[in-house]
Amino acid sequence: MTPLVNAPEQEIVYRGLKRYNYRALGERIGQLASALADLGVEFGDTVAMMDWDSHRYLECFFAVPMMGAVLQTVNVRLSSEQVLYTLNHAGPKVVLVNRDFLPLLEEIKDQLETVEKFVLITDTGDCDLGAIPVAAEYEQMVEGSSSAFEFPDFDENTRATIFYTTGTTGLPKGVYFTHRQLVLHTLVDLAAFGTTAVQGRFHQGDVYMPTTPMFHVHAWGLPYTATVLGVKQVYPGRYTPETLLELKEREGATFSHCVPTILHMMLTHPASKNVDMRGWKIVIGGSALPKALAKAAMERGIDIFCGYGMSETCPLLTTSHLSLALLSDNMDYEIEMRVTAGRAVPLVELRVVDPDMNDVPRDGKTSGEIVVRTPWLTQGYFNNPEASKALWAGSYLHTNDIGVLGTDGYLRITDRLKDVIKTGGEWISSLEVEDVITQHPAVSDVCVIGVSDAKWGERPMAIVVLKDEFIGKVDAEGLKDHMKAFVEKGIISKFGMPDRIIFVDTLLKTSVGKLDKKTMRIKYGS
Amino acid sequence: MTPLVNAPEQEIVYRGLKRYNYRALGERIGQLASALADLGVEFGDTVAMMDWDSHRYLECFFAVPMMGAVLQTVNVRLSSEQVLYTLNHAGPKVVLVNRDFLPLLEEIKDQLETVEKFVLITDTGDCDLGAIPVAAEYEQMVEGSSSAFEFPDFDENTRATIFYTTGTTGLPKGVYFTHRQLVLHTLVDLAAFGTTAVQGRFHQGDVYMPTTPMFHVHAWGLPYTATVLGVKQVYPGRYTPETLLELKEREGATFSHCVPTILHMMLTHPASKNVDMRGWKIVIGGSALPKALAKAAMERGIDIFCGYGMSETCPLLTTSHLSLALLSDNMDYEIEMRVTAGRAVPLVELRVVDPDMNDVPRDGKTSGEIVVRTPWLTQGYFNNPEASKALWAGSYLHTNDIGVLGTDGYLRITDRLKDVIKTGGEWISSLEVEDVITQHPAVSDVCVIGVSDAKWGERPMAIVVLKDEFIGKVDAEGLKDHMKAFVEKGIISKFGMPDRIIFVDTLLKTSVGKLDKKTMRIKYGS
Repeated sequence: MTPLVNAPEQEIVYRGLKRYNYRALGERIGQLASALADLGVEFGDTVAMMDWDSHRYLECFFAVPMMGAVLQTVNVRLSSEQVLYTLNHAGPKVVLVNRDFLPLLEEIKDQLETVEKFVLITDTGDCDLGAIPVAAEYEQMVEGSSSAFEFPDFDENTRATIFYTTGTTGLPKGVYFTHRQLVLHTLVDLAAFGTTAVQGRFHQGDVYMPTTPMFHVHAWGLPYTATVLGVKQVYPGRYTPETLLELKEREGATFSHCVPTILHMMLTHPASKNVDMRGWKIVIGGSALPKALAKAAMERGIDIFCGYGMSETCPLLTTSHLSLALLSDNMDYEIEMRVTAGRAVPLVELRVVDPDMNDVPRDGKTSGEIVVRTPWLTQGYFNNPEASKALWAGSYLHTNDIGVLGTDGYLRITDRLKDVIKTGGEWISSLEVEDVITQHPAVSDVCVIGVSDAKWGERPMAIVVLKDEFIGKVDAEGLKDHMKAFVEKGIISKFGMPDRIIFVDTLLKTSVGKLDKKTMRIKYGS
Repeated sequence: MTPLVNAPEQEIVYRGLKRYNYRALGERIGQLASALADLGVEFGDTVAMMDWDSHRYLECFFAVPMMGAVLQTVNVRLSSEQVLYTLNHAGPKVVLVNRDFLPLLEEIKDQLETVEKFVLITDTGDCDLGAIPVAAEYEQMVEGSSSAFEFPDFDENTRATIFYTTGTTGLPKGVYFTHRQLVLHTLVDLAAFGTTAVQGRFHQGDVYMPTTPMFHVHAWGLPYTATVLGVKQVYPGRYTPETLLELKEREGATFSHCVPTILHMMLTHPASKNVDMRGWKIVIGGSALPKALAKAAMERGIDIFCGYGMSETCPLLTTSHLSLALLSDNMDYEIEMRVTAGRAVPLVELRVVDPDMNDVPRDGKTSGEIVVRTPWLTQGYFNNPEASKALWAGSYLHTNDIGVLGTDGYLRITDRLKDVIKTGGEWISSLEVEDVITQHPAVSDVCVIGVSDAKWGERPMAIVVLKDEFIGKVDAEGLKDHMKAFVEKGIISKFGMPDRIIFVDTLLKTSVGKLDKKTMRIKYGS
């Protein structure tokens, strides 16, 4: 592997607890493979990982697939029933588990159908057994094994990873990727993030710190990218704003990625005042980046921009890197582009189509569903031919996102296909209505959903969380007055004005922090 | 193709004669394919191209392989007999030929076995037929054809290109590359040139001008890379120092690549004084970059560095991009690293081995043959199983170059395997001896070869070209005195002191400007 030769002394850091170099990484990958082989892991077996973001996770990213085995990255935020379902569906032989998730595992251990061995992960190295029969402790096991593992050659289309996505409906679905796909995705990550003229570049002089979970689409593939670059890597373990800010400051992180919620937490935490954030490049993904949050980040000197993709796409499809022509001294102008999904990265064929799969005009106005082709998209859901067929209808992967493509190639996501509100023959973007409501100074959080309507088909409804100091002082009429100005300017359609606005203490969110509109439609929409 | 969507207005320039944008490039690629199909080109056919570096060549780089046909990039510097051999060996159905090469083609046309049609290329559009029966003129043919060509889907392992390398011995050998290989090579080009921290970066804000022939390993693949980047591209046609310098200045080229000879020509031409070369990134390949030339370039503000590879490797294997730690205010220190072959780019497994294929120590001192593996290496020579077997002996591609690998991963090429002088059991690098002799102020050019010796096996001999003003004033003894200091400092071995030094007016060079040591060994070595 080139970085082991080119950057052998470069550091990999786990919190304040562990620090080693790429030469050691190479040795430990061999040691981990030897240890797993001793536990009985063979070509084609599955190994499940349940840990926070760590150097151990990085070691698994390489060692398990390089053995010809499949790495299951378990979403530890799911309910124990869902974790049980995903483990039994993927069928791991060995589970590596951080002690923090032992209580979860203890609940379901008697129902696990395929697991033969557990390996305990602790930061301290002690091995308290509890109710789970543990075969080894991770660090002892790695250190006690030989680094001279003979990694086999095999077909590049061998499965390397699997994880589960909790989509719109039904049971979690298994998404899997092959070696070929991971390599291509990594190369295109390097190309997309490396070759930007100025803004948002990821290069060999950076310090990388992930702040999205490694179980979620391989932390967007960026740990692979960082390793090929040979940069210093900083793994934060369990996320708390304090830890992230402290590591950013102490280890000098310059390139990170997260969902808007994490960025918001870091910016608003009291400790953030003492952290110099200038030049920190942060890619936002997972959900739309609100302009106000982008502005708050830029005012701290953060180079903020977006990536777009989904579990099924490995995930990278587009980035909102600003071309030279778009760089300006006008922060508000730049933010307009920085919050878009951006432009397709190399090899991505991206189309915006009508329901008959005809391209809609590329005019910055006409919306349609985003469908894509590129060699690193999942070929289907694991053992789920029906969902796979729907995903790939018409030989393009369907994102179920609604977007608008500009003449400059920049893509704007206007809504999820299922969240679009179809009212009187018109499509209203729930996100656009949410954006307008958010601009009222009293609003802390908002969700707009479509509810059934006998006359119009659907009508929008807004579910609003007020800031503490405004509770009882702002009502539905006040918000509607606020919205009228946007209707008059043509920013939203008059059909987008919600019939009902209700106030709640908190919005329902999914395990990865997105608005759970499905459940809210059931709860509030009838 | 993403750049057609992301950078539709970006320019492609051919000398002062043609200027169009990427949208037009996309249309012209379709038009060219339609026109070639009308001429009878089908999937699997070969189309030969004989042109200077031009927008037309770029169009062929895409249109011909995308049809499923094979593009033969003809080395127009070979003798007419060699061109005849390569055309009959590759078997093109159609030949596209610049009028400048008609005399060459006229000599051999009666012996061409497979060619059915000729297309004439002119800068002026007129179609004078001469002795070659021309089916069409390129520009008229393209403009008169439909852009709506339906490019087929096919296996990625389909051959895309072929060209011939005139190696050490025997007939030219056909080297071919598949779509898969070109795509992987392009992605790694983007990764290697894009992600460098500071020095020698190729990015979306650059202006690209090739100054190596497009017939030679696809101009190192960089026209493909430039197109994916969506940068402005400047094609210079036939190289003259005046044209290159004028285009550099007028079109603002910022990224180029060439052999040392071209760089030397540009730096020493009188017109170069009026050209601002600051920030011009130039990759040097093809032969070793002398430190003195590197220094002359840096003194003009050129960001000079090296790439290493060969026809058989597509070609990129390593680049001498400086890591952040190597950037300094000391030009001489930087030059030491800039003139190396550099570090392996992603996916390249590079080994330096002894004759039994064991790795030699990675200590910056021990030399061995450089052997490589990576997915874009030619799988063999076209219709030449014997040479293919030797190329891939032991499952690694043999570069036939001798090198030394440092602890920092930087590779130094010390000689060609066949040019190493084996004297009394010791291996003497002919390049190192040449380097020492070049440092004598009277020396303009030098070649060191091994000649048979009954006692020692081989002994070094130097063939020297003196600068005009020193002719008759410096003799062999004078040069030997100069060399003694280097022997005393241990820079070269005492066995490296040539037994014979002769003076000539000019050194023999190959068609691509390299020292023709093979012929010189025959001419002077006996």
